[in-house]
Amino acid sequence: MTKIKQNSPVLFFYNNSKKWLMNISKKESFHTHIGVIKHSDAIGKEYGSRLMTNKDKYVYLLEPTMYDYIMKIQHGTQIVYPKDLGYIAARAGIKDGQKILEIGTGSGSLTSFVASIVKPRGHVYTFDVDEKFMKIAEKNISRSGLSKYVTQHNLDLKTSKEIPVTEMDVALIDLGDPWIVIPKVRKMLKGSGAIFAICPTMNQLEKLTMALVENEFTDIESTEHIIRNIEAREGKTRHSFQGIGHTTYLCFARKAFFGKTTAKTTTKAKTTTKAKTTTKAKTTRKKTKT
Amino acid sequence: MTKIKQNSPVLFFYNNSKKWLMNISKKESFHTHIGVIKHSDAIGKEYGSRLMTNKDKYVYLLEPTMYDYIMKIQHGTQIVYPKDLGYIAARAGIKDGQKILEIGTGSGSLTSFVASIVKPRGHVYTFDVDEKFMKIAEKNISRSGLSKYVTQHNLDLKTSKEIPVTEMDVALIDLGDPWIVIPKVRKMLKGSGAIFAICPTMNQLEKLTMALVENEFTDIESTEHIIRNIEAREGKTRHSFQGIGHTTYLCFARKAFFGKTTAKTTTKAKTTTKAKTTTKAKTTRKKTKT
Amino acid sequence: MTKIKQNSPVLFFYNNSKKWLMNISKKESFHTHIGVIKHSDAIGKEYGSRLMTNKDKYVYLLEPTMYDYIMKIQHGTQIVYPKDLGYIAARAGIKDGQKILEIGTGSGSLTSFVASIVKPRGHVYTFDVDEKFMKIAEKNISRSGLSKYVTQHNLDLKTSKEIPVTEMDVALIDLGDPWIVIPKVRKMLKGSGAIFAICPTMNQLEKLTMALVENEFTDIESTEHIIRNIEAREGKTRHSFQGIGHTTYLCFARKAFFGKTTAKTTTKAKTTTKAKTTTKAKTTRKKTKT
Amino acid sequence: MTKIKQNSPVLFFYNNSKKWLMNISKKESFHTHIGVIKHSDAIGKEYGSRLMTNKDKYVYLLEPTMYDYIMKIQHGTQIVYPKDLGYIAARAGIKDGQKILEIGTGSGSLTSFVASIVKPRGHVYTFDVDEKFMKIAEKNISRSGLSKYVTQHNLDLKTSKEIPVTEMDVALIDLGDPWIVIPKVRKMLKGSGAIFAICPTMNQLEKLTMALVENEFTDIESTEHIIRNIEAREGKTRHSFQGIGHTTYLCFARKAFFGKTTAKTTTKAKTTTKAKTTTKAKTTRKKTKT
Repeated sequence: MTKIKQNSPVLFFYNNSKKWLMNISKKESFHTHIGVIKHSDAIGKEYGSRLMTNKDKYVYLLEPTMYDYIMKIQHGTQIVYPKDLGYIAARAGIKDGQKILEIGTGSGSLTSFVASIVKPRGHVYTFDVDEKFMKIAEKNISRSGLSKYVTQHNLDLKTSKEIPVTEMDVALIDLGDPWIVIPKVRKMLKGSGAIFAICPTMNQLEKLTMALVENEFTDIESTEHIIRNIEAREGKTRHSFQGIGHTTYLCFARKAFFGKTTAKTTTKAKTTTKAKTTTKAKTTRKKTKT
Repeated sequence: MTKIKQNSPVLFFYNNSKKWLMNISKKESFHTHIGVIKHSDAIGKEYGSRLMTNKDKYVYLLEPTMYDYIMKIQHGTQIVYPKDLGYIAARAGIKDGQKILEIGTGSGSLTSFVASIVKPRGHVYTFDVDEKFMKIAEKNISRSGLSKYVTQHNLDLKTSKEIPVTEMDVALIDLGDPWIVIPKVRKMLKGSGAIFAICPTMNQLEKLTMALVENEFTDIESTEHIIRNIEAREGKTRHSFQGIGHTTYLCFARKAFFGKTTAKTTTKAKTTTKAKTTTKAKTTRKKTKT
Repeated sequence: MTKIKQNSPVLFFYNNSKKWLMNISKKESFHTHIGVIKHSDAIGKEYGSRLMTNKDKYVYLLEPTMYDYIMKIQHGTQIVYPKDLGYIAARAGIKDGQKILEIGTGSGSLTSFVASIVKPRGHVYTFDVDEKFMKIAEKNISRSGLSKYVTQHNLDLKTSKEIPVTEMDVALIDLGDPWIVIPKVRKMLKGSGAIFAICPTMNQLEKLTMALVENEFTDIESTEHIIRNIEAREGKTRHSFQGIGHTTYLCFARKAFFGKTTAKTTTKAKTTTKAKTTTKAKTTRKKTKT
Repeated sequence: MTKIKQNSPVLFFYNNSKKWLMNISKKESFHTHIGVIKHSDAIGKEYGSRLMTNKDKYVYLLEPTMYDYIMKIQHGTQIVYPKDLGYIAARAGIKDGQKILEIGTGSGSLTSFVASIVKPRGHVYTFDVDEKFMKIAEKNISRSGLSKYVTQHNLDLKTSKEIPVTEMDVALIDLGDPWIVIPKVRKMLKGSGAIFAICPTMNQLEKLTMALVENEFTDIESTEHIIRNIEAREGKTRHSFQGIGHTTYLCFARKAFFGKTTAKTTTKAKTTTKAKTTTKAKTTRKKTKT
């Protein structure tokens, strides 16, 4: 049973739109629409306990999860939403021990989520060029205690000749023009390694998909993910009137080798195969263009 | 660079509806609509390479991910789909090192997915009563190499008085009548620990939500998740004509303590608080009933 | 070519959230965030022309459609949305010449929409008990010039013994407890006539469906309708970030006669048939209860 | 009370996937998976009655609606679905008495639906170039008894210089490249008349939207419409597992006159206005291109 003490992280939870994520510091207290909350009142409580504000409102003392850190990041900067984060992890099969490449650190929400899964034996190598964002991301990643599992690089992979990392299990791309880095990403991925790109527009999906075919990726899949809240109440259950129209589309693919096709199962075929392969490959490409 | 050898797991991938997950065994070969595939042809290749069948079709040799194992499980038994699995992980903040309780092992797809995230330091304790399913689950879990991180119990938590595990970080419930086990699950969860229940019907959401309020849970949220495939092709990008209507709804909540409310921020109030608390709690409950 | 003159109805359109529906009256002018608009400036213009406000904003002079009248009604009162209205008309096959029964006039948006379709030879008989709403509806219906095709009744069909109309082609129900009026509605509908009920909650769908089976309706169908806006812009096409979570579910059915089953196609069977029918009917009912 | 007689149209309804639309002809009978059905058994029955097949299955005798005719058309040819038809009618405010232009008759499902609403005083002028389809459409339109309200033209509006009709209230476009006919459609529409285009791909929405701006249309709106079936059963209510991924997107707009801008509300401004207008117009156009 974990008790809250000085410096413990706490999500002061009133409801999903009114919640505050902080580390306990004895002397602090904060003023909200629902009343004043004194940190010291939380000390010694078990996570899950609640306080009553001086306005008689209950505030729950929750142990912050990755979700809470990500939703906290949300304030101010653009993030990848849990509905999308979750599918990325499930579709790419992200798991403990993997090496992840991220291009476009942004505010570090995707970085943190992925790091929390691949730790302790895995690592996230994330690249960005915006100093300001890199500082924000650094703060967000360390707040969720994951700095040890993330390396931030200030390097423009669109232009640089460097191949700073290789044999990555998964590459995550959050750029306006993801297709530009595909040939480079290919070099950094292991065989049959996965790519996931955050594509807010249909045009990005279209351009990226063509680049993925050109660069010998397979199992290419574009999806969108809609979350609908349901208000479950006795005799009155229905979907929420509020809803989100769109966050982003996602594009997934796996690295293949079109060239390295082996013999057919009959020895005869062997000689003819290679030629066949290349022509085949070409036509496939052409097909995807029309 | 990992080369495929005897016993290596391989996803023979033609497309998303034609794929075969197997461990390589030299002498084997299998017959499909797209031709004959000889395991031996895969040996020595790098993951991501492709073979050509005797019908001139390409088959990619992919390194199986958790996703591939789960979709493989799908054949025959009912599973929790990646779109839902992903949200469960993201919303509950499942991560390396956690202890997970699962009630209703089913075919072991949720079990395997969660185990792949909490390993190596975490563990999944899963309970079921159906011998047949437990065998299927055992096979599926070991196929994905996760047996070490999962303990299967043949115990009916609906009836048994036992509390076999405690201080769980997250509880996953896949039962027709999840509300029955809530008081018991509460005892097994740590403070502010999370619950996720798989609820295919609206009626389940409704009954479960009432049980969660009665049993002092907070941050209660019901959602559904819709995945839509997009066919991104030059000049012809649109959603896929095929779609899935429904898989399941999900219900999330976190364990709280309604009783343990502390003093208001003013000393005066102290004496009156407790009384207030209990009445408050009651009314909250009543409210949720109308 | 229709020119705008004194008393012409005009939708002053700036964008979908800033638009004003009025009848032109020479001396009037109105002040908005986008500037001052003088009615007199519209006189003599063709519908579709635009004015410039004193703040250099363009305002289009559009000829109001049924849609515009319905969205105007929206302000203040709850309405049935075009996405739902449209499906009601399409699924029930509402068309010129039909007689429509409406229970729950509300603000008259559904009333007006349906009247605009069945006119000039059809008619809408609408029932409500709330004097205040009936006045609002009357105003809305006459504003869209449809009073001639609508008869408003102040009568509670839940309690009254009267059968004020019969042989209706379609019955539209917008009540909190639609199942109560089903036996009565049945008496007012023609054979195989259609019912449509506005059901904001899943519980209503459930209770109503059972009542429809009990009361010998067939082709029972519950649906929900999601509209998603798309922002089509060169190179940046995507769904809108804003969205609507939920408006209402819809329940459709057609009046049948379970009793009036005729002989099988073999003379022999004749005698046994009737018995068979009734038992069958019973079992069907029972089935739907479990 | 309408009794079924020789030549009456009847929808023999078993369930939504097993139904047959026919005109009664005494001597006919048809064989189905659910048994033999003799037309003669229907004669003299009231619509809504049911027959029992020689396999003890009930078949309901329903009076066909526009919906039934459209779903019948579906077999074999591509149609516009009721969910989309309905929104077209509701958003464009289609009603009795209107003149409708349709480019791309296809199988005549949209044609028939719209004709059933604008009759008896309105009319549909529909254009196509495919002789084969025109014959199919003619058959479908006459089957639903609407020939009187529809004129079919074999004319290619993409190339022809003719302006065969003018002052249309609404224009419906179902072409692969709708943008090509926009300047022409503009000439056929009345001021502030509405356009609706059936656009299965996002690329069509994008190109069409640009053409609409270039051609002085306003209130431009792109939408998609998702219908979800709900299985409402006591204690087991949920969405259907089956679903439709995509049918088409829709693009709506209204004809405006960018040129005909009048003076500002202050006399002073008058002189400067026109200039301002044109530049404005230009910039608007430019904006939509980036």
